[in-house]
Amino acid sequence: MMRTRPLKVALLGCGVVGSEVARIMTTHADDLAARIGAPVELAGVAVRRPGKVREGIPAELITTDATALVKRGDIDVVVEVIGGIEPARTLITTAFAHGASVVSANKALLAQEGADLHAAAEQHGRDLYYEAAVAGAIPLIRPLRESLAGDKVNRVLGIVNGTTNFILDKMDSTGAGYQEALDEATALGYAEADPTADVEGFDAAAKAAILAGIAFHTRVRLDDVYREGMTEVTAADFVSAREMGCTIKLLAICERAEDGGSVTARVHPAMIPLTHPLASVRGAYNAVFVESDAAGQLMFYGPGAGGSPTASAVLGDLVAVCRNRLNGATGPGESAYAALPVSSMGEVVTRYHISLDVADKPGVLAQVATVFAEHGVSIDTVRQQGKHGEASLVVVTHRASDAALGGTVEALRKLDTVRGVASIMRVEGE
Amino acid sequence: MMRTRPLKVALLGCGVVGSEVARIMTTHADDLAARIGAPVELAGVAVRRPGKVREGIPAELITTDATALVKRGDIDVVVEVIGGIEPARTLITTAFAHGASVVSANKALLAQEGADLHAAAEQHGRDLYYEAAVAGAIPLIRPLRESLAGDKVNRVLGIVNGTTNFILDKMDSTGAGYQEALDEATALGYAEADPTADVEGFDAAAKAAILAGIAFHTRVRLDDVYREGMTEVTAADFVSAREMGCTIKLLAICERAEDGGSVTARVHPAMIPLTHPLASVRGAYNAVFVESDAAGQLMFYGPGAGGSPTASAVLGDLVAVCRNRLNGATGPGESAYAALPVSSMGEVVTRYHISLDVADKPGVLAQVATVFAEHGVSIDTVRQQGKHGEASLVVVTHRASDAALGGTVEALRKLDTVRGVASIMRVEGE
Repeated sequence: MMRTRPLKVALLGCGVVGSEVARIMTTHADDLAARIGAPVELAGVAVRRPGKVREGIPAELITTDATALVKRGDIDVVVEVIGGIEPARTLITTAFAHGASVVSANKALLAQEGADLHAAAEQHGRDLYYEAAVAGAIPLIRPLRESLAGDKVNRVLGIVNGTTNFILDKMDSTGAGYQEALDEATALGYAEADPTADVEGFDAAAKAAILAGIAFHTRVRLDDVYREGMTEVTAADFVSAREMGCTIKLLAICERAEDGGSVTARVHPAMIPLTHPLASVRGAYNAVFVESDAAGQLMFYGPGAGGSPTASAVLGDLVAVCRNRLNGATGPGESAYAALPVSSMGEVVTRYHISLDVADKPGVLAQVATVFAEHGVSIDTVRQQGKHGEASLVVVTHRASDAALGGTVEALRKLDTVRGVASIMRVEGE
Repeated sequence: MMRTRPLKVALLGCGVVGSEVARIMTTHADDLAARIGAPVELAGVAVRRPGKVREGIPAELITTDATALVKRGDIDVVVEVIGGIEPARTLITTAFAHGASVVSANKALLAQEGADLHAAAEQHGRDLYYEAAVAGAIPLIRPLRESLAGDKVNRVLGIVNGTTNFILDKMDSTGAGYQEALDEATALGYAEADPTADVEGFDAAAKAAILAGIAFHTRVRLDDVYREGMTEVTAADFVSAREMGCTIKLLAICERAEDGGSVTARVHPAMIPLTHPLASVRGAYNAVFVESDAAGQLMFYGPGAGGSPTASAVLGDLVAVCRNRLNGATGPGESAYAALPVSSMGEVVTRYHISLDVADKPGVLAQVATVFAEHGVSIDTVRQQGKHGEASLVVVTHRASDAALGGTVEALRKLDTVRGVASIMRVEGE
């Protein structure tokens, strides 16, 4: 059964993930060979700093010339774990042109250039797999793309960034403010020195674009994803959330419109009920909740980042791609046949929790309620708390469009009796 | 791109699951065709009662001769949702012999005859897929078999029976006894009139055998699975569990021994900490927790039964098998190369929570502790409560083998001062 000529793998990048991929390829060589049906061999490792000691990787495999490596022609699979747009994009398309299939962990590249990369893979009859690009080790792309291939996915609701989940969980459990929680995340290595990509939601937005495309069989570009970071979430917001029986998570939300004719994708902080399975996702863990017509509600949970978990996802793809190669076949490529338009944020329909600072005098509630009514936003509950001549009004709405809510808030700000809008938070997962 | 000759599907069984498969094949025909790359056509439906009205299924497709249907020779995929060992086994092997691939939801058959069925599929170069056989709609077999193919799974810990989870959750949340909770489950349709297969753990044991085989790349037969039902779990056990910061779940547990040289599979009620992700799995939901070397801890959650969820899993397999057929390839078959021995329950190592009714007099604790020590079972905590001349001792052990614990309990029963062993419960998930 076992073929003896090994499949040759080129590794682009040998950082935290790449070195772990190389290590497992060596230590678990027999298992991988048995599962694939042929041995796999590390044929070359492209790095930027060749002088660095890389335990377990023979020095003769190291090269700084990634382009020459992917052009060798005898490479069966290129594993790309360098990240970023260039040179990753050119290396991957060059790899396809020279006969290799590709396994990538590059969310930014897939979110931005996924369609072109898939087209290149198909043109050359090669595979492009990227389970590691979304939610690390959690099997998510394969279940969406294959297990649910006979179902109709309506919503994907995910915690797909571990750094921000760590910070929000810390704020929730200790009452800390954003800065204090961020400082702790940084000290513990959960946040990078420049946390912008995480806390401003760029990382989650890239994953949302990838997930939405796969879930809805359509093309969703990074620019289509509405994005709002979580730097303005306060300890007071968590108190409000608790009063609602909720907590706050940074969510990536991909939805099919109720009429099925369009989709939306967005990333923002939101309140979700404590009874929702996503509410109990702690620390730096990730989890993705999927709602579909037939399967109902599914959740996938696990570590969303880190060298070993990401390597696990890369190696699962490597095994699949190698098997396909031995079969002379390819796995499922891009499925974008539905070609659904992506609606803007204004058309998103959800519920809202709004805190207003208002004057403590008769008629204020009536004025505020009138503004909501004029904009077609129906109020679910209102809570009024007075203090020293000022009062706060907490309004929770029924489902309304983001555009209608935006118009409401703009009009509220113009009322003399409204001193300020303390916070606006969407309520999801109900 | 699209092939015009449709792929032909024969459906064996048209009950709750089968009728839902047929319905989705009709209503989502265009989506399925786009995802597969060719239309799929329902070519025949084998039923026992041909007179029953079956909405949406043309009468000319209905037959009572399942054997003739799978022998037609023009069938691409046989979907088997009749359950049980025979005639399902013979129909499946006949289908392979006549050129069809098979999608099955039959856990009992897969657990008992999986090796032979896989061999038949391989002999004829056909696919055997059965995602729906374990945990309904939850993608589990595909992630284990494919996503984690480059990783080393060490433990699978699952709630894989919705009926028993509903009953235990009810006992936990309301303080009800077993019978009362079972009655409610029956009234609500969560338990069958004869609940034996569920409450005695037979259903979960079949799933454990399948999961263990896939997770460890070895063959685990149904007879290899230790099985203990949950009919003797009491309201008092839940009180004890709460005191430990735990709840009680019926778990299917598949483990690789620490030295890696053998595996075990078992089903029994167990205490798990409230902080464990499985503890918050409510009602009839299923969830499976997987621990592997590189990925770490993953969890898969969703509805474990029901017509639509099971149909979702069947259709995901159908799409995959059809794609393979168009590719002229097959997906991954049985992977049992590791050929690890399955150890008996005596060799399982875990922690135990033991409640003893003892005489309330000096020296009893010393006697009891001596018995534990003589059997090499180390005690973690002891709590003693006196009442009217009698006392209860609650002992929680460190990790010990089931054989050592069994010997300990046997010796305890012989002590004059021990009036009875009120309960023994394993403690998992720590």
